[in-house]
Amino acid sequence: MRSIEVGILGGTGVVGQQFIRFLQGHPWFKLTWLGASDRSAGKKLRDATPWRLDGEMPLSAAEIVVSESKPRNAPRLVFSAMDASIATEIEREFAQAGHCVVSNSRNHRMEPDVPLIVPEVNPSHLSVIPLQQKNRGWKGMIVTNPNCSTVTLTMALAPLAGFGIQRIIVATMQAVSGAGYPGVASMDILANVLPFIGSEEEKMQQETQKILGSVDGGQFRPLHARVSAHCHRVAVVDGHTVATSVELSSKPRPSDVQAAIETFRAVPQDRKLPSAPPHPLVYMPQQDRPQPRRDAARENGMSVFVGRVRECPVLDIKFVACGHNTIRGAAGAAVLNAELMASEGLFD
Amino acid sequence: MRSIEVGILGGTGVVGQQFIRFLQGHPWFKLTWLGASDRSAGKKLRDATPWRLDGEMPLSAAEIVVSESKPRNAPRLVFSAMDASIATEIEREFAQAGHCVVSNSRNHRMEPDVPLIVPEVNPSHLSVIPLQQKNRGWKGMIVTNPNCSTVTLTMALAPLAGFGIQRIIVATMQAVSGAGYPGVASMDILANVLPFIGSEEEKMQQETQKILGSVDGGQFRPLHARVSAHCHRVAVVDGHTVATSVELSSKPRPSDVQAAIETFRAVPQDRKLPSAPPHPLVYMPQQDRPQPRRDAARENGMSVFVGRVRECPVLDIKFVACGHNTIRGAAGAAVLNAELMASEGLFD
Amino acid sequence: MRSIEVGILGGTGVVGQQFIRFLQGHPWFKLTWLGASDRSAGKKLRDATPWRLDGEMPLSAAEIVVSESKPRNAPRLVFSAMDASIATEIEREFAQAGHCVVSNSRNHRMEPDVPLIVPEVNPSHLSVIPLQQKNRGWKGMIVTNPNCSTVTLTMALAPLAGFGIQRIIVATMQAVSGAGYPGVASMDILANVLPFIGSEEEKMQQETQKILGSVDGGQFRPLHARVSAHCHRVAVVDGHTVATSVELSSKPRPSDVQAAIETFRAVPQDRKLPSAPPHPLVYMPQQDRPQPRRDAARENGMSVFVGRVRECPVLDIKFVACGHNTIRGAAGAAVLNAELMASEGLFD
Amino acid sequence: MRSIEVGILGGTGVVGQQFIRFLQGHPWFKLTWLGASDRSAGKKLRDATPWRLDGEMPLSAAEIVVSESKPRNAPRLVFSAMDASIATEIEREFAQAGHCVVSNSRNHRMEPDVPLIVPEVNPSHLSVIPLQQKNRGWKGMIVTNPNCSTVTLTMALAPLAGFGIQRIIVATMQAVSGAGYPGVASMDILANVLPFIGSEEEKMQQETQKILGSVDGGQFRPLHARVSAHCHRVAVVDGHTVATSVELSSKPRPSDVQAAIETFRAVPQDRKLPSAPPHPLVYMPQQDRPQPRRDAARENGMSVFVGRVRECPVLDIKFVACGHNTIRGAAGAAVLNAELMASEGLFD
Repeated sequence: MRSIEVGILGGTGVVGQQFIRFLQGHPWFKLTWLGASDRSAGKKLRDATPWRLDGEMPLSAAEIVVSESKPRNAPRLVFSAMDASIATEIEREFAQAGHCVVSNSRNHRMEPDVPLIVPEVNPSHLSVIPLQQKNRGWKGMIVTNPNCSTVTLTMALAPLAGFGIQRIIVATMQAVSGAGYPGVASMDILANVLPFIGSEEEKMQQETQKILGSVDGGQFRPLHARVSAHCHRVAVVDGHTVATSVELSSKPRPSDVQAAIETFRAVPQDRKLPSAPPHPLVYMPQQDRPQPRRDAARENGMSVFVGRVRECPVLDIKFVACGHNTIRGAAGAAVLNAELMASEGLFD
Repeated sequence: MRSIEVGILGGTGVVGQQFIRFLQGHPWFKLTWLGASDRSAGKKLRDATPWRLDGEMPLSAAEIVVSESKPRNAPRLVFSAMDASIATEIEREFAQAGHCVVSNSRNHRMEPDVPLIVPEVNPSHLSVIPLQQKNRGWKGMIVTNPNCSTVTLTMALAPLAGFGIQRIIVATMQAVSGAGYPGVASMDILANVLPFIGSEEEKMQQETQKILGSVDGGQFRPLHARVSAHCHRVAVVDGHTVATSVELSSKPRPSDVQAAIETFRAVPQDRKLPSAPPHPLVYMPQQDRPQPRRDAARENGMSVFVGRVRECPVLDIKFVACGHNTIRGAAGAAVLNAELMASEGLFD
Repeated sequence: MRSIEVGILGGTGVVGQQFIRFLQGHPWFKLTWLGASDRSAGKKLRDATPWRLDGEMPLSAAEIVVSESKPRNAPRLVFSAMDASIATEIEREFAQAGHCVVSNSRNHRMEPDVPLIVPEVNPSHLSVIPLQQKNRGWKGMIVTNPNCSTVTLTMALAPLAGFGIQRIIVATMQAVSGAGYPGVASMDILANVLPFIGSEEEKMQQETQKILGSVDGGQFRPLHARVSAHCHRVAVVDGHTVATSVELSSKPRPSDVQAAIETFRAVPQDRKLPSAPPHPLVYMPQQDRPQPRRDAARENGMSVFVGRVRECPVLDIKFVACGHNTIRGAAGAAVLNAELMASEGLFD
Repeated sequence: MRSIEVGILGGTGVVGQQFIRFLQGHPWFKLTWLGASDRSAGKKLRDATPWRLDGEMPLSAAEIVVSESKPRNAPRLVFSAMDASIATEIEREFAQAGHCVVSNSRNHRMEPDVPLIVPEVNPSHLSVIPLQQKNRGWKGMIVTNPNCSTVTLTMALAPLAGFGIQRIIVATMQAVSGAGYPGVASMDILANVLPFIGSEEEKMQQETQKILGSVDGGQFRPLHARVSAHCHRVAVVDGHTVATSVELSSKPRPSDVQAAIETFRAVPQDRKLPSAPPHPLVYMPQQDRPQPRRDAARENGMSVFVGRVRECPVLDIKFVACGHNTIRGAAGAAVLNAELMASEGLFD
């Protein structure tokens, strides 16, 4: 694979910084461009923003001069880490101008001709892109990844598809890093639980149906399964925990479900995409795992950890899943999407 | 009401200390006796154990000389705050000897002739006591209160009984104080979630069915509704949060459910029992409430706070409930049970 | 004492809310007026802002219609809870117009004719007020209380004045509530320590010298003792902890220092001011106390708790002090200042 | 360097597990032996204890059969991770039997013929070993590393030795991992500060003087500088923060001190010892760094991070230092000591 130049829209924000960190040393993608607001444009990244993540700003990125968020001299492949308040128009403008926008923003996820991709779960949904380009007269494209809690859930459910998913109830315990920076006030979360995250329950419910659904004649057919989410913020730095109950039409035993999770492999593993974890799902047999602080960052933060598969007295099976929200649920998700797209020749 | 002398079995442990604190200034009950292990017996409380709770040991209790856990000179009414590892035999010995044991321990909760009481929910279950005394040849009795997370759940569900409870799925986020002292290691819980609490899910499932069930001919008829619990420990000091989905046969609207919660009053309120909160359930209309740190201790920790009643796409209704685990879920629960028993003349 | 009407400048912010809560049921002061920005003016408080503190907004305050921050119809006594960015001009305008401004803002603290008062420590500094009024041609006045960490330190040092304070080194561990709302980002403080609080070290160093100094001929003479502060933010909700080493010219033994702390009483106690704690300093003999979560809120949050008085191998004596930063260090501090002023007839 | 077999005394405890993790893939040392109590002896490690650290037990260690803590078949080089309650006799028995005991336990640190080593600070103290062997008639030896908070302090002070260290006052904010497992109860530390750690202040004061002192005629000459420590436990997982004020006889400017820190290199760097960090001290110019959660684990947890060098109004210079307590302050410290010893031919 030849080196592909990439840019980041929203490159100075905390999500942009997560992209910068994740792309360090990437074997295919070389970061050469950062787009941000007019206020930052023209400055080196080091002068445009403080580094919000652990450690220090990577030197190679620190020297990049930030550009305005205009297609002009941006590379063909741009990741979007923009805030939802501004992403809609700018992403469209880039796609219109021939760029491949691989977006972490929520703005276009639910549109009927925009793929919402988890590479291990629904890679075939990329097949909608020609229709998207035709509908909109774009030479470029927009491809999205889901909300951070949805990634963890859909990854964990993927191997259960063969059992016939009927109904899903989840309760999430989500890390504060999912809210960006400054995000959640410390007065709100220390020694506390916040039982509400704006729009999160709706996003999990709708996005899960779209991702687990099919494509038929260029149209998405959402999964018929009803989904109910209870979303909570807890005092965790990184890693979303998702307590899941699921109704399955073929009534498998817990051991069958556990085996399906343990043996699950998918397209990113088959193609050995650079960011694909060898084990997309890691089953933990210990009774008190997975745990966000101890597990989410393992496997470069790209695996989802599952434990406690057992019978649910109300639906059929229950289990707990945990994934890294800013890696597998954001920057890493988008980069793996781009790797999948590259492997299909979409950037050739 | 004349003053009633009371004792505490397990009076030197952290749960015993919660009883001591809760009984300070009680209008009916006067603490005069503390039972503990032989190691503490003969010492003043102040010399037998450090005070584990906020503030300092109440002076009146500090001077009580701890007794062995023998019925002998204990008052007729004793609260049991004993560890489950030793409670079974000692509680029986006291009941045999004519004492009224009002126990917070789990040991006898599920026995077929032992009432498991939440005074707002199932006060009529006390009617089993004569049968208990007859079966066992006891002059005294054992009455129990449920597990801390079960109290919060059953209180919140009580006003929904009229809608026909069919199925219940809950996910809990439980405070560390529920595990006693030293309890949860800080290495395990800081910036983390533990997705397992030993036996907690089974207790919530079974106890909820018993409490919401009926008594028929001296026999408990557990509620037929299936219950599924996902239990988690979170980095909260006090206050258990319970995300609840419930299927209701009469399909009420969320506004009907909210109204039933807001107007709920029960026997303890009618009888103005001293520890009964004026509003056993407090409905909070704010979208991000209740929260354990901000709400659990209000109303002396004896109310359960409910919020976010809304439609559940899978079952019918979902909401979040929050209660104080060491007050409403332990010491306060037992004391209110004893007040209910006193109001029925059981100590006369 | 007749009832005195009071107002709060900055009444809709989180500090203003702390004043509202602290003034609930006050025997002398009746809250009748709230001043805030034009954006809030004309609205009832309940509609102007959400309640940021535990529990719910007090009903009596909820119905007050917020005014613009203009002297006009404000009562003579106004507390200032304004942000430092706007307090300078508005406080002066109120003092000019004849109001007694009792301010928690830092803006005027270090001015040479403005008293910076801790009622237990330097009540005599109020004697500067006539000079202030003369200098500035004011009928009203401005009186200030110190920074939240300075209150804890100066209270703990007050009984040591007789030993001859020479040098002071402190390290603080400060609660997040000291930074207001939203204040510290949870991403910054969870499982972390922030070794910097803007301007805090300078404020502690200068304010301590002013408060522990004397007044001579209408002029403040700062204490000659050098003060060095290391200030840190820690993951605590309420309560600042101050590790203190102090050099004392008379070389007392630790037991002498402890005795001086235990027996310390001052003007607010003598005059039985309503918010004065019976014991302004509470000495805790336990080796691991005081602790912010367990102690700061005791005694209505108005005492300072001290422990571990012992020899310092470098200076002479070391100890740890802990106080409630939003009560004794802010709203309660200002209200106690106003009570002291009332007891001196300043509002007659 | 040929491969050297190593063992761990106390290999099943949480400190032992930190050694196991740190030794994974070590280029010189190959872990082949684990000693523990009789209860564990004879079992594979995987069956003897659960893994307490992040992630999962390394497979190579999991298969080692645990031995009794007897010299017999142990390798010549053994690390001691034993609890202080049992380390004294066992470590002596091993040294007597010819083993080189590189101990993290506190038991022998302050003995007059036992080196207490921080390789960057006082490598020459190893010169006492022949005297130790002669005094005690040992063929083996005991070498120790200091307490976790002392390592951070002495590393940060090492480059200041040339300025003439006169007096030191520190306040620590220490992570819970420093207390082992289960260690600090979560009820004690959530949203709290504990102003006491048993014996910690004495250890920091004495060990610092020994490490920063000299060896003269086979005898340790402790540094004359007086040291005063205030030690606190805070809600941090890993990383001790040390706020430091120091009196320096040559009165350097802060910029001189900063330069000395930035340019500091020592024997482990010169010899390129495998665990030596390229920069033993990392100076961070940001005003709010270092921070334990963001910095302590960088550079494999082996560097100490320093920031905020500035004038101290009481002593001369103040700054904040942060180091990883279970790596640089425990397992990594001992392994680096062993590397230093290997580089001097002590195991030949």
